[in-house]
Amino acid sequence: MSLLLVLDLVGTFVFAISGATAGVTRRLDVFGVLVLSFVAGNFGGIIRDVLIGSVPPAAVNDWRYLAVSLLAGAITFYWYSAVDRLRSPVLMFDAAGLALFAVSGAQKALAFGLNPVMAALLGMMTGIGGGMARDVLLADIPTVLRADLYAIAALAGAAVVVVGHLLNLPPTATTMAGALLCFGLRLMAIRHGWRLPIAKRESTRRED
Amino acid sequence: MSLLLVLDLVGTFVFAISGATAGVTRRLDVFGVLVLSFVAGNFGGIIRDVLIGSVPPAAVNDWRYLAVSLLAGAITFYWYSAVDRLRSPVLMFDAAGLALFAVSGAQKALAFGLNPVMAALLGMMTGIGGGMARDVLLADIPTVLRADLYAIAALAGAAVVVVGHLLNLPPTATTMAGALLCFGLRLMAIRHGWRLPIAKRESTRRED
Amino acid sequence: MSLLLVLDLVGTFVFAISGATAGVTRRLDVFGVLVLSFVAGNFGGIIRDVLIGSVPPAAVNDWRYLAVSLLAGAITFYWYSAVDRLRSPVLMFDAAGLALFAVSGAQKALAFGLNPVMAALLGMMTGIGGGMARDVLLADIPTVLRADLYAIAALAGAAVVVVGHLLNLPPTATTMAGALLCFGLRLMAIRHGWRLPIAKRESTRRED
Repeated sequence: MSLLLVLDLVGTFVFAISGATAGVTRRLDVFGVLVLSFVAGNFGGIIRDVLIGSVPPAAVNDWRYLAVSLLAGAITFYWYSAVDRLRSPVLMFDAAGLALFAVSGAQKALAFGLNPVMAALLGMMTGIGGGMARDVLLADIPTVLRADLYAIAALAGAAVVVVGHLLNLPPTATTMAGALLCFGLRLMAIRHGWRLPIAKRESTRRED
Repeated sequence: MSLLLVLDLVGTFVFAISGATAGVTRRLDVFGVLVLSFVAGNFGGIIRDVLIGSVPPAAVNDWRYLAVSLLAGAITFYWYSAVDRLRSPVLMFDAAGLALFAVSGAQKALAFGLNPVMAALLGMMTGIGGGMARDVLLADIPTVLRADLYAIAALAGAAVVVVGHLLNLPPTATTMAGALLCFGLRLMAIRHGWRLPIAKRESTRRED
Repeated sequence: MSLLLVLDLVGTFVFAISGATAGVTRRLDVFGVLVLSFVAGNFGGIIRDVLIGSVPPAAVNDWRYLAVSLLAGAITFYWYSAVDRLRSPVLMFDAAGLALFAVSGAQKALAFGLNPVMAALLGMMTGIGGGMARDVLLADIPTVLRADLYAIAALAGAAVVVVGHLLNLPPTATTMAGALLCFGLRLMAIRHGWRLPIAKRESTRRED
């Protein structure tokens, strides 16, 4: 439970930075940036909690989620040039948040008794929810629907946690393995340009 | 209850095809297409279940909704050209999904004890929710807010179910009548270009 | 409780007008305009109710929210030129709805036992939720993320209610004070162009 909370808060922090960075890039004011920080950091977890019936959601009931989101937003707002000098910071923080939320989301869904397949999918959704809400608020098509191996990476990380749970492996180990797998997959996909296939439309199919 | 499940799953399938088709058209990758399939097929039902307090929602708790959504997405992705040769497939599948969800949504809301007016509206919302989420994710203004007799058709179908419930008519008959009415209204609206009026803005009003 | 209901219904009415006005401006048909009225008038409250575990939400369970929303939508649709002659009607109604929802949202969250900080934030979110949903449906970046002192005004109004609650002041007085503070702040911000700062991006920082 304590591990779950730490993962959730660190995931919230890094996702909030991705939200704040996107907000600064779009020239939002300081409050808009903070709102975007909170949404990117907490939307996935709030949706997960509402769907498993855990209301009020942790992000609404526990002030630490808010504090962590606002801290990340304020740091990004006031030291944007420093944050921006990091190489492609949105992508990096987004990948870390994705990994942390995917595993913590899967763990919480298992703790609430969901079946394994749905626990893995709720883990994935916890991971991609915040980024989707961030992009929808900025009137963009969510990155997750386009990006290289994005949701697949989250699903793989969540699946490691679920499989470890079924095999009674120690949760700390499977959680770290799942997070590392997700983060690694996402970084490799960004670096090597790994992409999932796109459906063919005009041409006739040649190979499969 | 069994009828409700079948309607829900068939509605999920056809709406998922509309989501997948929209995703392929926008050049999303295979996972983006599958996510859009799931969202278009299940968002309306998830919102309905959350609002009537039936959590975890059926689409999260029952693997068949997921399986049906992914099947529809995969078929559309791999045989897009076949799906596309159907005349205006998005519109047709959208109309069928709208009809099926409107009646199943109204039935479930009645089963959970909502009053008749709200049951009809939740039926309408079950029908239009998935398509709205699909369009919002693609950064479009939802079709439902523009299209010819879209929400009205869903509301009419849901109202038939609710009125039948109040009159103690057999549910199978009223459900089929409601679905046919909704589907027929929507197709007629598409074919004949029936539109609801748009507010006048500049000119002075002449007639009423 | 009665005060809460009146505030909520009046807030719903004015927000619904802002939604309907935005819909007419975008040339939506009459049903699209009514849907947008309902969403703008009720989305914030529905989210608040789902998050505090009060389901079905008041806006779904109580026909008066629907009636008030449809009335506002119909008035705007049929007498748009009259509504439009009011000076910047969207901004005015939006500000009034913001103020009413911020205080009623904070009150309801307090009544459900949330801690003071979260009650103030849920008040803010009740206020900004409807407008955000309205803008997202129209594929715009929500006004709240850009506008002059928008969310801050809602937060200030909600905070007055919460502080009054902690000090055991009479709720009617603190509610009116909170609503007036929020409305006044928002109007002053519009009139005088008060803006929150935007993060610096290219230039090096000179002062702090």
